[in-house]
Amino acid sequence: MPAGRLVTTAHDVGFVGAGQLARMAGEAASALGLSMAVLAASPDDAACGVASEVLVGSPFVEAELRALVERCSVVTFDHEQVDLAIVDALAARGGVLHPGSATLEFAVDKAHMRTSFEAAGVAVPRFAVVEPGEGSVKAVADFAADFGWPLVLKAARGGYDGRGVWPVAGRAEAEAVLVRAGGPVVVEETVPLDAELAVLVARRPSGDAVVWPAVETAQVGGVCREVLVPGRLPDRVVEEAGALGRRVAELVDLVGVMAVELFWSDGRLLVNEVATRPHNSGHWTIEGAVTSQFENHVRAVLDLPLGSAAPQHGAVASVNVFGGADGADPARRRGRALTVEGAHVHLYGKAARPGRKLGHVTVCGDDAEAVRTRAWTAALALGTPAPAGIDLPAGVAR
Amino acid sequence: MPAGRLVTTAHDVGFVGAGQLARMAGEAASALGLSMAVLAASPDDAACGVASEVLVGSPFVEAELRALVERCSVVTFDHEQVDLAIVDALAARGGVLHPGSATLEFAVDKAHMRTSFEAAGVAVPRFAVVEPGEGSVKAVADFAADFGWPLVLKAARGGYDGRGVWPVAGRAEAEAVLVRAGGPVVVEETVPLDAELAVLVARRPSGDAVVWPAVETAQVGGVCREVLVPGRLPDRVVEEAGALGRRVAELVDLVGVMAVELFWSDGRLLVNEVATRPHNSGHWTIEGAVTSQFENHVRAVLDLPLGSAAPQHGAVASVNVFGGADGADPARRRGRALTVEGAHVHLYGKAARPGRKLGHVTVCGDDAEAVRTRAWTAALALGTPAPAGIDLPAGVAR
Repeated sequence: MPAGRLVTTAHDVGFVGAGQLARMAGEAASALGLSMAVLAASPDDAACGVASEVLVGSPFVEAELRALVERCSVVTFDHEQVDLAIVDALAARGGVLHPGSATLEFAVDKAHMRTSFEAAGVAVPRFAVVEPGEGSVKAVADFAADFGWPLVLKAARGGYDGRGVWPVAGRAEAEAVLVRAGGPVVVEETVPLDAELAVLVARRPSGDAVVWPAVETAQVGGVCREVLVPGRLPDRVVEEAGALGRRVAELVDLVGVMAVELFWSDGRLLVNEVATRPHNSGHWTIEGAVTSQFENHVRAVLDLPLGSAAPQHGAVASVNVFGGADGADPARRRGRALTVEGAHVHLYGKAARPGRKLGHVTVCGDDAEAVRTRAWTAALALGTPAPAGIDLPAGVAR
Repeated sequence: MPAGRLVTTAHDVGFVGAGQLARMAGEAASALGLSMAVLAASPDDAACGVASEVLVGSPFVEAELRALVERCSVVTFDHEQVDLAIVDALAARGGVLHPGSATLEFAVDKAHMRTSFEAAGVAVPRFAVVEPGEGSVKAVADFAADFGWPLVLKAARGGYDGRGVWPVAGRAEAEAVLVRAGGPVVVEETVPLDAELAVLVARRPSGDAVVWPAVETAQVGGVCREVLVPGRLPDRVVEEAGALGRRVAELVDLVGVMAVELFWSDGRLLVNEVATRPHNSGHWTIEGAVTSQFENHVRAVLDLPLGSAAPQHGAVASVNVFGGADGADPARRRGRALTVEGAHVHLYGKAARPGRKLGHVTVCGDDAEAVRTRAWTAALALGTPAPAGIDLPAGVAR
């Protein structure tokens, strides 16, 4: 019997998945006096220590997801590795799950997302959906004939944090990737990037929504390394991104928080990815905005009034912390990072492994360079590897 | 066997008591990636839902406190209803408890606190310690002969939130109180108040300390109803209070956070009470300061570097939420309070009872009147009774 099943109280909110997003949402829920349960893959997952009840199980097993739904006023998601048919079936029997399967599908299936957005007139990179099988290599080559190599191939389903995304330089590489992908693939033009950015939206069932100011993100190998608010983004782009985020949230009929990841390219904003849950690009909101993404996610899925998404500082930098090659636990270096002025150190309570995302550091202030310098100084003190491909500020202490 | 004893992992921090202070400390500990256990009187206590492990027991039973000490890197306190001899005995056998018994005694025993502070030259109201028994009424009357009626009698031990504090107008009343008190009593002059204030200090074992700006508190019947930062306190008083708080923290050899409650009277600051733990007068720091009292308490007891105690806003108001006469649960009115702009609603997950402290609301901004108005509007929306003895701002919506 899964842990916690003997507890007889019910909970306000249940999370499918017990990673760091559920953990941080749990901190926000606790402050509001709410009780949280989680459906965890393992009792060691990040959120298990702060949940009022832990069910160990899988959202791909209907009975296990149903157990969570039955014990919670509303169920929401830490990740989108779910079976939409099960979500639908439980909702049809009166379960409350937000966002619903129609919204989740935009995050679960990139082919659906791209196709739907294009049909609605939302700008996306030029793309084609390629089904697996005999004609697939030719389909990619035909696309390349129109838009040129290199291209980007993306598994329509199952990718995250750079996994399932493959830049390919030519036909032979494309062929190898198509074999590896084993399912439908989205083939995309390589977009020349002026910046990558993300915009977060919280939206209630009624349609009431708030939008946090768009942020600049820096990715290495498809993995977000730092978030800068506002970064190099001009006011006009921040404004346009906010409007686009709001429009996308309506399009997918969002309930909860979502992140819309954008390319800024040749003066245009293109939608790259969406996540229909709190997102790494919004961790800065914990200290940097009047209301955090986690609090507003919980408020939105419970259909409570949303809090202000206004920023509280002129500049915010948030840097992710990954396990170093030596496998050392950043928790053992916490004291070093906490000597950095204004460093808000977040660790997720996960076992350290090289390359695993284990925490983040946020610094707020008025001076963009200063907050970025301090955030990196603290993140490096925690043992995160200095990333190739990101120029660290000159003042970073190593 | 108490709940949780089968769990085999150990924790970073253990709390004696599982009330709202432990709950809010647990939220801060979670953000830092720390694991918290609690020794709870009941599994329904506020912090139980967010603790990684719950031991149900009493700190007055050595084996039950020892069980917590054995499972945690450091043990600290949600309240001071403890047996100092047990704390001492466990520390002597290698347990790590912060603050230690010598510090706790200042909060546990008002007679000890007053006598020690006076001996150290810290200004306190004029007082005498009256032992129970035959001569006690005469001792109070003698004190009154010097300083006049009305006086304040305080139980030396066991009082909190206005309990164990009795203003008395004359000899007959004093006699009744002395019978009721049943133990040593501190008799004090009635101090004419210009304001009541509180200052919070965090201090590490090394003596490193940070001091949050002093706040004005409004008490009704000995119970704190609102906290204003900086309230009506002139800069000079805030500065003087900060220095006094730092001095008191050294005097009691604090490790952790403490609150020093002060009277501002005829241009002088007098120490009224001390609490050697996070305190209601510091809840505003969660949103209002760079580092909250809860985070710094956890950092201090784990001997980690302390975070900045600088305020982040020009004005902060924090209003306590109590159960109304109808016994209605403020959690059912959460949505109403969350419509108030910038209202940070904290509920503690406690069962509603008339007069019970169930939560608080903090609003930060630049305009003292505006934040106070909004904080009261949200607190009243949660059903807290409008207090006699506090003039609410004219703009409060009821």
